Amino acid sequence: MKYGFVNEENMSLLTDLYELTMAQVYFDEGMHHLATFDFFARRSKHRTYLVSAGLEQLLAYLESVRFTREDIDYLNRTGRFSSDFLDYLKTFRFTGDVYAVDEGEILFENEPFVQIEAPLIEAQIIETFLINTMQISILVATKALRCYSVAQETGLVDFGLRRAHGTDAGMKAARSAYIGGFIGTSNVLAGKLFDIPVFGTMAHSYILAHETEEKAFEHFARRYPDNCILLVDTYDTVEGVKRAVETIRRSGMKRFKGVRLDSGDILALSKATRRILDEAGFRDAMIFVSGGLNEYTIKRLLDKGAPIDAWGVGTKLVVSADEPYLDCAYKLVEYDGRPVMKFSPGKLTLPAKKQVFRTYRDGKISKDTIALHDERVDGRPLLRQYMSEGKTVLPLPSLETIRERAIENLRQIPDSLKAIETDERFTPTVSERLAHLVETMKKSSH
Amino acid sequence: MKYGFVNEENMSLLTDLYELTMAQVYFDEGMHHLATFDFFARRSKHRTYLVSAGLEQLLAYLESVRFTREDIDYLNRTGRFSSDFLDYLKTFRFTGDVYAVDEGEILFENEPFVQIEAPLIEAQIIETFLINTMQISILVATKALRCYSVAQETGLVDFGLRRAHGTDAGMKAARSAYIGGFIGTSNVLAGKLFDIPVFGTMAHSYILAHETEEKAFEHFARRYPDNCILLVDTYDTVEGVKRAVETIRRSGMKRFKGVRLDSGDILALSKATRRILDEAGFRDAMIFVSGGLNEYTIKRLLDKGAPIDAWGVGTKLVVSADEPYLDCAYKLVEYDGRPVMKFSPGKLTLPAKKQVFRTYRDGKISKDTIALHDERVDGRPLLRQYMSEGKTVLPLPSLETIRERAIENLRQIPDSLKAIETDERFTPTVSERLAHLVETMKKSSH
Repeated sequence: MKYGFVNEENMSLLTDLYELTMAQVYFDEGMHHLATFDFFARRSKHRTYLVSAGLEQLLAYLESVRFTREDIDYLNRTGRFSSDFLDYLKTFRFTGDVYAVDEGEILFENEPFVQIEAPLIEAQIIETFLINTMQISILVATKALRCYSVAQETGLVDFGLRRAHGTDAGMKAARSAYIGGFIGTSNVLAGKLFDIPVFGTMAHSYILAHETEEKAFEHFARRYPDNCILLVDTYDTVEGVKRAVETIRRSGMKRFKGVRLDSGDILALSKATRRILDEAGFRDAMIFVSGGLNEYTIKRLLDKGAPIDAWGVGTKLVVSADEPYLDCAYKLVEYDGRPVMKFSPGKLTLPAKKQVFRTYRDGKISKDTIALHDERVDGRPLLRQYMSEGKTVLPLPSLETIRERAIENLRQIPDSLKAIETDERFTPTVSERLAHLVETMKKSSH
Repeated sequence: MKYGFVNEENMSLLTDLYELTMAQVYFDEGMHHLATFDFFARRSKHRTYLVSAGLEQLLAYLESVRFTREDIDYLNRTGRFSSDFLDYLKTFRFTGDVYAVDEGEILFENEPFVQIEAPLIEAQIIETFLINTMQISILVATKALRCYSVAQETGLVDFGLRRAHGTDAGMKAARSAYIGGFIGTSNVLAGKLFDIPVFGTMAHSYILAHETEEKAFEHFARRYPDNCILLVDTYDTVEGVKRAVETIRRSGMKRFKGVRLDSGDILALSKATRRILDEAGFRDAMIFVSGGLNEYTIKRLLDKGAPIDAWGVGTKLVVSADEPYLDCAYKLVEYDGRPVMKFSPGKLTLPAKKQVFRTYRDGKISKDTIALHDERVDGRPLLRQYMSEGKTVLPLPSLETIRERAIENLRQIPDSLKAIETDERFTPTVSERLAHLVETMKKSSH
């Protein structure tokens, strides 16, 4: 019986076979020169901006990826690799440089989140893991910040672990949601490993396991008088709220943390609930809502005046339901000093090692320029060197700092792009020199 | 710097906080009786059937889940748990029974994939991990079998690792795709750990790293004469195919495995490619297609006569793009011998411990009956006892066997439900006794 966890020991093999067959040929042909790869996303359907996330995980992987003897034995058994190449893999290390945009920074189409410069084989082998780590992190951080952008003064909690696509997605979703302005997660392990605040009280099964809703409330209030959020919709929501109020009164508790609604007509029920709580004198008791939420439903409810204080956002956040993948790519842009680009229809890429420069007007992003890395262009350069020769050379910020950066970045987005439903997009400018290079390469390819 | 992998050591904390706060109260109140929970999915938008998958992973988790000292220390630091409850967690084991449908079996709405019967706390704590493991496995196995159902005699390979939502999703996707009739994966670690055939040759970066396409082809053919699938669309597909043919000829190879197309008008290009290959005498050379594929595009291309031999299906398979989550739930249906059900609007559940019986007519599934577990109903019972008192008691089938079962099940689906686009759904019958129980419980709740 096998679970098949990925961990520090076996993660080197979490790669596509073609990375290794290509590497074998590079090895055969002595192609060990420096290669530069860009990781970026193309224009997306429902997103006006993307939030960088996942870099810390990527750096942790790059610093420690190794091929164990067991890995080498397996590769040997596939019959696809030469013994001298397998010998090379035994001492494989990532020795390259990494330029990346800070986590929490907002990017637009075609701007590289990460730029890898390393001997060709190394830069190639790490491709699969890099995309696997970064894409889901960016997806959830972006979805989370969209929720944050409409949540006004209310709080958002990640409830998505169960519906995340596997264990690792659950961890990354909790971390990314926090980056995107959430106040915490239901995921206990993420709470422990990433030091994120954890939230949670009770499920419907808890109510049903008791013979009456009343007893269920009573028992919970007894154990958690200070953290008593009662789930009131198992039988009848309005009756449930009244019962919750009675329970709290009978227990003699001074403070009532609040109730959770998970079904039904949330607008009407939240208003009815607020009335009952207020009339009972529990003006501080909060209304926590969950169940199929996303940025669209949160906005709609708040716009209509639903008196909701906090949200548990689950499935649609962690699978990024309306956009479950990015049109992202990790593309070779330079090899051995020679800029390269792909000409496949609809998949044109920008060649050469790059830098992105950002300028602001009145506190808002006014222009991004994608330029060659050694160009001098107005604005703040977004790519910073995080790794040199396989070692991380910048101090990594705390998750709090990253979260603040994301929120600060949100403020800098032009208002028209902040709308959660709009066809408007922000198009980065390509610098003259880079545009000229593209034209030259196009011509010489004919 | 922290990756935050989930592994055998820390997986107990990969749970929602509320599972543990509920458990604390159950512990306080001495609620240690047997509970039965169903894991099932409600009617889905784009799926007429679901393929069971992920059970082996679930059983592996249930057999080995433990709270380490470090876990307990963390829980203690949250200030939410009593010391006697934390002592209980120190020796926590899952000691329950598991009834489940075989992996590879096809199920319909409201039929339980898994039924857990265990002391309440145990059955509650495992909820999050169970759903996290099963949902993505079912999603991908189902999506894969849908691709298989339209692929006719062509082969399907999982290319999705990079776009899967994190490391664990990549592993589960490879395993589930294989269950759903795929012939293999690009994921090397899945190849190693699950003994799945691995596939892969080269990327566009490989072509671009060489000064000419010709040299790139030549080098690859030299190393892999027997497994030489050349990617021909980096510059111009038709020219690429001609160049591939010349390379193979010049190398003196007798056999040419084939070419891969990854962009452009695939219908026209595959026909042009076939012509060039045939005219060059390489009638056995295959055409392998990749790039944004799913069951809809595969069907469309084959219906139009595209001469394609195999497919690399990636992103849209592994994130189940048109249906990235199931409306699935893990619901308490019985506690201490008392059947229970939830009355929240639109979320009615079927109470009590169950069995599902399936009958066939002319080799096709004709009727499913959801019944009480001790009823005698016509048909084959689908739920089998896989675990007794925390120990797996059935031999687990090989992945090959599971794959054959899924393919056999596909043959048994009524043709109208096999269509990949249809509003038709198969509704299981609820047995008279179960229907009667639901009615009785509804009445007594008023």
